[in-house]
Amino acid sequence: MEKTRYQKGVDIINEITVTDNKEIGTHMDIVAAFKDIAPDLESFIVEFAFGDIYSREGLTKHQQTMATIASLVTLGTEPQLELHINVGITIGLTPKEIVGTIVHLIPYTGFPKVLNALKIVKRVFAQRNVKIDDLAMQSN
Amino acid sequence: MEKTRYQKGVDIINEITVTDNKEIGTHMDIVAAFKDIAPDLESFIVEFAFGDIYSREGLTKHQQTMATIASLVTLGTEPQLELHINVGITIGLTPKEIVGTIVHLIPYTGFPKVLNALKIVKRVFAQRNVKIDDLAMQSN
Amino acid sequence: MEKTRYQKGVDIINEITVTDNKEIGTHMDIVAAFKDIAPDLESFIVEFAFGDIYSREGLTKHQQTMATIASLVTLGTEPQLELHINVGITIGLTPKEIVGTIVHLIPYTGFPKVLNALKIVKRVFAQRNVKIDDLAMQSN
Amino acid sequence: MEKTRYQKGVDIINEITVTDNKEIGTHMDIVAAFKDIAPDLESFIVEFAFGDIYSREGLTKHQQTMATIASLVTLGTEPQLELHINVGITIGLTPKEIVGTIVHLIPYTGFPKVLNALKIVKRVFAQRNVKIDDLAMQSN
Amino acid sequence: MEKTRYQKGVDIINEITVTDNKEIGTHMDIVAAFKDIAPDLESFIVEFAFGDIYSREGLTKHQQTMATIASLVTLGTEPQLELHINVGITIGLTPKEIVGTIVHLIPYTGFPKVLNALKIVKRVFAQRNVKIDDLAMQSN
Amino acid sequence: MEKTRYQKGVDIINEITVTDNKEIGTHMDIVAAFKDIAPDLESFIVEFAFGDIYSREGLTKHQQTMATIASLVTLGTEPQLELHINVGITIGLTPKEIVGTIVHLIPYTGFPKVLNALKIVKRVFAQRNVKIDDLAMQSN
Repeated sequence: MEKTRYQKGVDIINEITVTDNKEIGTHMDIVAAFKDIAPDLESFIVEFAFGDIYSREGLTKHQQTMATIASLVTLGTEPQLELHINVGITIGLTPKEIVGTIVHLIPYTGFPKVLNALKIVKRVFAQRNVKIDDLAMQSN
Repeated sequence: MEKTRYQKGVDIINEITVTDNKEIGTHMDIVAAFKDIAPDLESFIVEFAFGDIYSREGLTKHQQTMATIASLVTLGTEPQLELHINVGITIGLTPKEIVGTIVHLIPYTGFPKVLNALKIVKRVFAQRNVKIDDLAMQSN
Repeated sequence: MEKTRYQKGVDIINEITVTDNKEIGTHMDIVAAFKDIAPDLESFIVEFAFGDIYSREGLTKHQQTMATIASLVTLGTEPQLELHINVGITIGLTPKEIVGTIVHLIPYTGFPKVLNALKIVKRVFAQRNVKIDDLAMQSN
Repeated sequence: MEKTRYQKGVDIINEITVTDNKEIGTHMDIVAAFKDIAPDLESFIVEFAFGDIYSREGLTKHQQTMATIASLVTLGTEPQLELHINVGITIGLTPKEIVGTIVHLIPYTGFPKVLNALKIVKRVFAQRNVKIDDLAMQSN
Repeated sequence: MEKTRYQKGVDIINEITVTDNKEIGTHMDIVAAFKDIAPDLESFIVEFAFGDIYSREGLTKHQQTMATIASLVTLGTEPQLELHINVGITIGLTPKEIVGTIVHLIPYTGFPKVLNALKIVKRVFAQRNVKIDDLAMQSN
Repeated sequence: MEKTRYQKGVDIINEITVTDNKEIGTHMDIVAAFKDIAPDLESFIVEFAFGDIYSREGLTKHQQTMATIASLVTLGTEPQLELHINVGITIGLTPKEIVGTIVHLIPYTGFPKVLNALKIVKRVFAQRNVKIDDLAMQSN
């Protein structure tokens, strides 16, 4: 039996955003926070953004998340960037891939957006206890 | 003997942008076009953008190009987007990966920037004779 | 029997975008143009953008279109702005309301985006034979 | 006797921004805050933005405010968005119209800017004691 | 006797935009082009943008024009950028100052906006017969 | 003997960002803050942004800083704007030139970005004990 768009969306959200740390929000928390003023946001985020877009075939979760992070750095919308850096860690992007995606954008977005994004990376890495020792060897 | 930043940059530009089709520009053409008014642009693009940024370890060429395309769609700078969709084809991103990266951004950039990017994709795919038959099977 | 999301979307698209002038595109033309490379875009535009978002209760079609135009002027994405100025005419926004929405944004977006938008307005008004005589009386 | 541009501007500012709650700023507070470093800002905001632009005929105050909110959501400039959500409440936009204008923009700006705007809406609704019970019935 | 805002604005427009080449537009042409749909735009551009803003004391015309060009490169609004590169030439910015202002922005806006701006510079320099020989010596 | 790109960059950073107030950061602090996750950022900022871009001939330090501030106001990236307003004070831009550059952008960026920038100016002027008495005489 085929899953509904809602169920597809919830499954992806659970897969990519849920962590042991209860302080770190997921997309279901966002949905819950706006239930009073925009109850249909739940459908738009769960069914459309995740059930439709994230469940497209063709890109891996790693690729989807790197594209998402690249777009959010360029937009400069920081709360969403924080959320998707967390997603990156949860699905197994390495610190090198997360930092690498952001630093790679310097020629396209300029330094300011990249530096503001890296500040968020440092905060999230600390909160999630990400080991960054080997990053020190990154430049060659 | 270690390669200079300039040589590193030229090597990467040759690897990712040169095609059989002489009508399709490469970054060396951009550099040449502005030699008269900004001769040091050659150093900034070849040595910094490619010799420094693109030669960082940590991301594959595929990952770098997907992040670049995601950022350029978000910025909406169309000549550069056209160039890097060409890069994507040259280095071997599949049509599904190129289109997939762009369509994945709808929840982040909205439809207008994605639609304008897909128009460029169609033009480049036609120019490069990219087979898109199997893309018709993309939605499931 | 409740209409499907797709039917809801098609009905709204027909209501707000179809004109006698076959040269003026509708959202169904956009969907058709990308059927080969992104066939699921039809669902995203028809079912999500129109079936879900445009069919929300709370705003009139006039209000939705003015908000859309204001957002597109601010984004600066010109093909979509042209399309939605056409929508404005089709659903009955007066020339004063269309021009008024755009000129009102000068303090928020600055002059450049407003001037570029007004250039499109002039082209669309000419193509649609919109009478603008009374607009000459607009300033008081 | 015709009102001066300054008087026209002050009258509109008083009409659309003044509330009983002294903690909620008006455009006159902004003007006062910058009197020391840019005294002519008072003229630019009161006389130009309000005396000229807001006093144009053609749009109602409701329409002007919805266009303003749509543009500010798209720009992502949060302090001004907060101010104009307050204006919306003061001039009588319903919660449904304010939330509806913002949610309508998802296809144009993407989710991040809309979610960041709705966070501000919740804060302002709480501060202004806006009843949002009936919004729970919004999706159909 | 003090000049009116309108006269102040016209004087500055004449000073900074009028050239021998009738094909190169001035701000008065913009005003004329929109007289039918937005007649009060004349007042907003001539009286506010030039009569108020450009006639502020504190910056020289050179400084105003460099700040304008830097902002327009960052916005990416090309018709206005073309106009103000023309202004730069008319008021006596050197080719080095015009190109220098734009190239200086690479770390802030990234390469795409700078390259698109330099393309416009080349077109305007050709149209205005600007000698760029000595620019070839620019990098040291 | 010619200075290295790194030494050129450090010299410019020292010249334009170092103050007596240890609480005010310099670009070397940014570099240090990201040494763990992106050690090569030091080279990109010191050698490229300052050693290459800021050491170009053609613009004075005053002109470079005004162009930088104009671009950052337009981008809306506030931490960098704060840093470069500090640079402006350190290299000797007058309060009138700093405020004048920002206010001059109202016709291009609109009021929101200018007002948010002026808020930062007030904070930095207070922290740096900038005398702004004579600015009160600015409008004439």
